[in-house]
Amino acid sequence: MSAAPFDKIALVGIGLIGGSIALAARRAGLAKKIVAATRRAETAEAANRLKLVDHCGTDPAQACKEADLVIVCTPVGACGEVAKAIAPVLKKGCIVSDVGSVKQAVIKAMAPHLPADIHFVPAHPVAGTENSGPEAAFAELFDGRWTILTPLPGCDPKAVDRLEAFWKGLGSQVDRLDPAHHDRILAITSHLPHLIAYTIVGTADDLGGHLNAEVLRFAAGGFRDFTRIAASDPTMWRDVFLNNRDAVLEVLARFQEDLFYLQRAIRWGEGDKLFDLFTRTREIRRALIHLNQA
Amino acid sequence: MSAAPFDKIALVGIGLIGGSIALAARRAGLAKKIVAATRRAETAEAANRLKLVDHCGTDPAQACKEADLVIVCTPVGACGEVAKAIAPVLKKGCIVSDVGSVKQAVIKAMAPHLPADIHFVPAHPVAGTENSGPEAAFAELFDGRWTILTPLPGCDPKAVDRLEAFWKGLGSQVDRLDPAHHDRILAITSHLPHLIAYTIVGTADDLGGHLNAEVLRFAAGGFRDFTRIAASDPTMWRDVFLNNRDAVLEVLARFQEDLFYLQRAIRWGEGDKLFDLFTRTREIRRALIHLNQA
Repeated sequence: MSAAPFDKIALVGIGLIGGSIALAARRAGLAKKIVAATRRAETAEAANRLKLVDHCGTDPAQACKEADLVIVCTPVGACGEVAKAIAPVLKKGCIVSDVGSVKQAVIKAMAPHLPADIHFVPAHPVAGTENSGPEAAFAELFDGRWTILTPLPGCDPKAVDRLEAFWKGLGSQVDRLDPAHHDRILAITSHLPHLIAYTIVGTADDLGGHLNAEVLRFAAGGFRDFTRIAASDPTMWRDVFLNNRDAVLEVLARFQEDLFYLQRAIRWGEGDKLFDLFTRTREIRRALIHLNQA
Repeated sequence: MSAAPFDKIALVGIGLIGGSIALAARRAGLAKKIVAATRRAETAEAANRLKLVDHCGTDPAQACKEADLVIVCTPVGACGEVAKAIAPVLKKGCIVSDVGSVKQAVIKAMAPHLPADIHFVPAHPVAGTENSGPEAAFAELFDGRWTILTPLPGCDPKAVDRLEAFWKGLGSQVDRLDPAHHDRILAITSHLPHLIAYTIVGTADDLGGHLNAEVLRFAAGGFRDFTRIAASDPTMWRDVFLNNRDAVLEVLARFQEDLFYLQRAIRWGEGDKLFDLFTRTREIRRALIHLNQA
């Protein structure tokens, strides 16, 4: 399945993800024309200065006119509003997609606004860095990573195939999941880790003053890996937690339970319980390395 | 302060840290002779095959005879036993040190066995990787990282200065802390992050089966950074938690409190609380980058 180029791609939002899609699409010759729109004029200026797209403005509807593929690359909380704004101008038969880390809430927010004669295929590229904004974009972001499509029942299989081919052209591997299943898996692999990292970095910071300087100095002992994750875009992540609440709270409860188990083992000096878990988790790293996802 | 070479250095334990000390000491010409001893014959064979030291055997007392600098590089839980075994052969005026991630417990375990005519200077290089064993050693491990000395009251300042010069010669920066203060700082920057990483990787693994394969597949969303930390040596880390219990339980309680605060914010949809924390933690990453410790 090779990707036929789109005549016009429109990106709504041109940060790390939107910008990287533009660069990777150009690298692979997947579009004759790529335009974008973003809320803030300064961001649009940066995108134009960096030549991420052929043109970036601030009007989503203007950008989406005549587009064959529209990808909403805003924080999850803005997707519904964007869908409403672009709905009237969408070209018949175009594909509308997104890049949100949460799928059920995005579908719920976008689907009611979208006309029946377009193909809505929600997507989530599981890729990113702790940097955000158009300056952070790079063409290789998706290489070897996974993108998850969560097509709705009744969606035209040809549109789904075409979007899959597009993401493969960007360098990604592609999988398809049910939206609810996606949200549960990502709550474990991504949302919970981010929540934990934000928490621990905040806890360390609260200790303040002189201690804080030493916390930073001796961060190489493990802490610095958390600071990288906890430097991720605040707006994006606020929206993720608010929009995947049930799944996050569920896995968080599991995590708390397991953490209390270890806390008790430490308090009572039960070294074997610690050792057994630490041996098991080491195997998981090996499995990841084997899967080329480490 | 430049490092005068030692005539003979003895390393008890020749894993990632011991092996890397040997390689870095040779790189900098800090020793005329480096020997080692390790518990298992296979590990000694590997160390000899890799030529990490001039000779590696299995008898700590044999290795430490005539040594001017002895560094105990075993897991923290073995330090007391090693001190007892080597005490009778220690050369008058030699420096005895260690590399343990916990300092109060190591001092308590080692000091009573050591003769009065040697200089005991506990140390902790805040450096490591998720790999362990002699094969994992490399000369650059300490470059630009920090090593913390926790000298005891009444210790000869010249011995402390000499050990400091040695660690600088290995490529490290050096700081000095009170042992109790060290244990509290490291509980935050290293022990708690490891405990959290072990927990979250275990929680994800418990979900098992098909889900587990997907957890691994989509690990790039944050989870994989935790798997790296949670692949660290199980024996070493069991000993750390058992030997720094009070400080770990204290910071763990703080962490739990902060996590419940975020959990409640998610449940009640209080996006501003999430956004405020996520903005603050991003600054901490920038501070780390500024300090060259990212």
